[in-house]
Amino acid sequence: MLEEMGKRARAAARKLARETTAEKNASLERMAAELWADRAHILAANAFDVEAAREVGLSSALLDRLTLNESRLQGTITDLRGVAALPDPVGETFDQGILPNGLRVRKQRVPIGVLGVIYEARPNVTVDVAGLAVKTGNSAILRGGSETLESNKALLETLRKALEESGLPADAVQLIADPDRARVAELLGLYEYVDLIIPRGGAALHRFCRETSKIPVITGGIGICHLYVDASADLEAALPVLRNAKIQRPTVCNALDTLLVHRSIASVFLPRLVEALKGDGVSFRAHANALPYVQQDRTGHVQPAGPEDFDTEWLSLVLGIKVVENLDEAVEHITLHSTGHSDGILTQDVENARRFTSEVDSAVVYVNASTRFTDGAQLGLGAEAAVSTQRLHARGPMGPRELTTYKWVVEGDYHIRTT
Amino acid sequence: MLEEMGKRARAAARKLARETTAEKNASLERMAAELWADRAHILAANAFDVEAAREVGLSSALLDRLTLNESRLQGTITDLRGVAALPDPVGETFDQGILPNGLRVRKQRVPIGVLGVIYEARPNVTVDVAGLAVKTGNSAILRGGSETLESNKALLETLRKALEESGLPADAVQLIADPDRARVAELLGLYEYVDLIIPRGGAALHRFCRETSKIPVITGGIGICHLYVDASADLEAALPVLRNAKIQRPTVCNALDTLLVHRSIASVFLPRLVEALKGDGVSFRAHANALPYVQQDRTGHVQPAGPEDFDTEWLSLVLGIKVVENLDEAVEHITLHSTGHSDGILTQDVENARRFTSEVDSAVVYVNASTRFTDGAQLGLGAEAAVSTQRLHARGPMGPRELTTYKWVVEGDYHIRTT
Repeated sequence: MLEEMGKRARAAARKLARETTAEKNASLERMAAELWADRAHILAANAFDVEAAREVGLSSALLDRLTLNESRLQGTITDLRGVAALPDPVGETFDQGILPNGLRVRKQRVPIGVLGVIYEARPNVTVDVAGLAVKTGNSAILRGGSETLESNKALLETLRKALEESGLPADAVQLIADPDRARVAELLGLYEYVDLIIPRGGAALHRFCRETSKIPVITGGIGICHLYVDASADLEAALPVLRNAKIQRPTVCNALDTLLVHRSIASVFLPRLVEALKGDGVSFRAHANALPYVQQDRTGHVQPAGPEDFDTEWLSLVLGIKVVENLDEAVEHITLHSTGHSDGILTQDVENARRFTSEVDSAVVYVNASTRFTDGAQLGLGAEAAVSTQRLHARGPMGPRELTTYKWVVEGDYHIRTT
Repeated sequence: MLEEMGKRARAAARKLARETTAEKNASLERMAAELWADRAHILAANAFDVEAAREVGLSSALLDRLTLNESRLQGTITDLRGVAALPDPVGETFDQGILPNGLRVRKQRVPIGVLGVIYEARPNVTVDVAGLAVKTGNSAILRGGSETLESNKALLETLRKALEESGLPADAVQLIADPDRARVAELLGLYEYVDLIIPRGGAALHRFCRETSKIPVITGGIGICHLYVDASADLEAALPVLRNAKIQRPTVCNALDTLLVHRSIASVFLPRLVEALKGDGVSFRAHANALPYVQQDRTGHVQPAGPEDFDTEWLSLVLGIKVVENLDEAVEHITLHSTGHSDGILTQDVENARRFTSEVDSAVVYVNASTRFTDGAQLGLGAEAAVSTQRLHARGPMGPRELTTYKWVVEGDYHIRTT
């Protein structure tokens, strides 16, 4: 069953790859207009999903993620128009040159082809992914969470209609509407028709895709993130950065999980930190070597860290704290415990900053900034398809360009190879 | 068992990633010197492999691939010195910029980490891969063919000694010396310690890796390659290009498999082509629409094409021929039958060249040149780790730069995210 969908996706991708930037952008604008025009239908379908989810007892946090309303739909439409306004990476040429034998060589950016995107219960992802796919000339096979099925069906109906009305193939965006989980495994085996799998969800989904897929997978989105406060850090300025990294949105992957503090400033800085953040509801898991600096806190915000605590992505208002003797020990701790997502140093020492960015090998390495900037829009990509923590193809936020690949174009004058 | 090897490879990779270009190049020079110094030991081990292979009846072609001698070892050493002389991609920065909020962003090229390379019975690959890995700061776990085990053990002993003597970790290069094929599957599961699998072998090995590996795989090396002779082609100049593409080295992946000829020149060109190439021992599989132009040949060089012939990588002196009505039909045939390796057009028409390079989406697309140029050294990369026909990370020849990835480095002044 999915094989037919794969074939249609491949055929659509071939057409899409030849569309001009203007045609693709016009189609995105059409999608935006039709989504707004069809809002009553879409919101009714979403209300059905929300009601069904409430009946099965979905948590209020998940219900909130699932819920669309006019204002949220408007936000999604604004994002779609933002994607239309971005530069089109397809067609860019790079690495041009003329070889000694006269062959003219260049690389030319082309779409990846067919993307398989597996995600959870947020209907706005459906529109985001469809928009980024069309922008970059890729077709997409979407597999959303079963809780959001009616919403996704309504959204797909509108998006596919907009594609057709603007002269692009409707099959550029398809939805796997069968809630059977066997369809996910089937999708992961369609290597003839799908070029890249992007899972957007928790660790279990990423592991399942990595272990099952016959198609290349971009895994990511799991962040055990560290900030190291060096001896030379501006402590006054460091506090707001740590606070931002921990509390601005604690449930996401780029939120701070572990704070490392240089021994020489621990006695000054750690009590101030605990004092400053406990008012925000943060609780602390202190390594044995940090406890002496913070155990005067009797309000229950500080507990000794357990054996797994420095390998935990908290996704909540918990912060691990540990004292290190020097930069080497900080780097060593990060090397052992980081998931390679986002790690940073706060320092006034240029040489320590240089060493840290050289020796810590995470997707995004920070000097004097919050880890919360690991995001496609924040880092100037305009939009984000995923955050990669694997090493192949792309690391960190993936924008439109990371949804493309390249081909070599080699032009000669009837050149033959002689060696 | 392999897990220990993986841990050592990971530790070595961390050290290697911090070595300077000068240190890595000095180590490559040391490898070159020690390989020559140890040549008696290496050639004796190789003679043992060759003798054993002869006893089990390996074909003379395979025996030839397996055999080392002083001259071939010297060639491999020269290649290693060539790799030392190449620019070091590690540390390159790109995509620098300052965001509107003042954050300074750049990407910095870093090694991939640990490479798992699975290959067949050519001992020179052992040295090539080790050299490219060290050059690019990666460590490598090698799995060569069992026929070449003694040769590889001797080579590894020398290479690891050279690494140590030059102050680099010996575990940068390790060999899986257990000939049990279960070790290959085990390697493909070591995702905590291995970042990339590069299979170098036939279609079955690539398929096995794609279907089994939990680690990203670069597949490639299978080429059903096409040249399309357009109505406007310089036919005098086209013949040597086709001859070069077909006969210079027919057993490799970038050799020509199928010739497509525009209807308007078929009656002039096809008889000349058959006449010119049959003297080289080429036999032809002609599509029904090409037969009328070539069936006057009574020497048995021309046969009607069978149903699978246009989906066959010949790896021998066989050439499929087919007549097409126009460029669209040529592109359509290539889209259906190419493996996306190397395809080209011979034409004097600039617009047709542009359309062909735009619409044919192979790793390397040629205008007026032989497909035989798809090779890292030929296309200016200096060396080649593999030829990728998948779409992620790298396409076509992979040189040193394609064995690296990047990290983002983001520097601020205690920046916090506000939205």
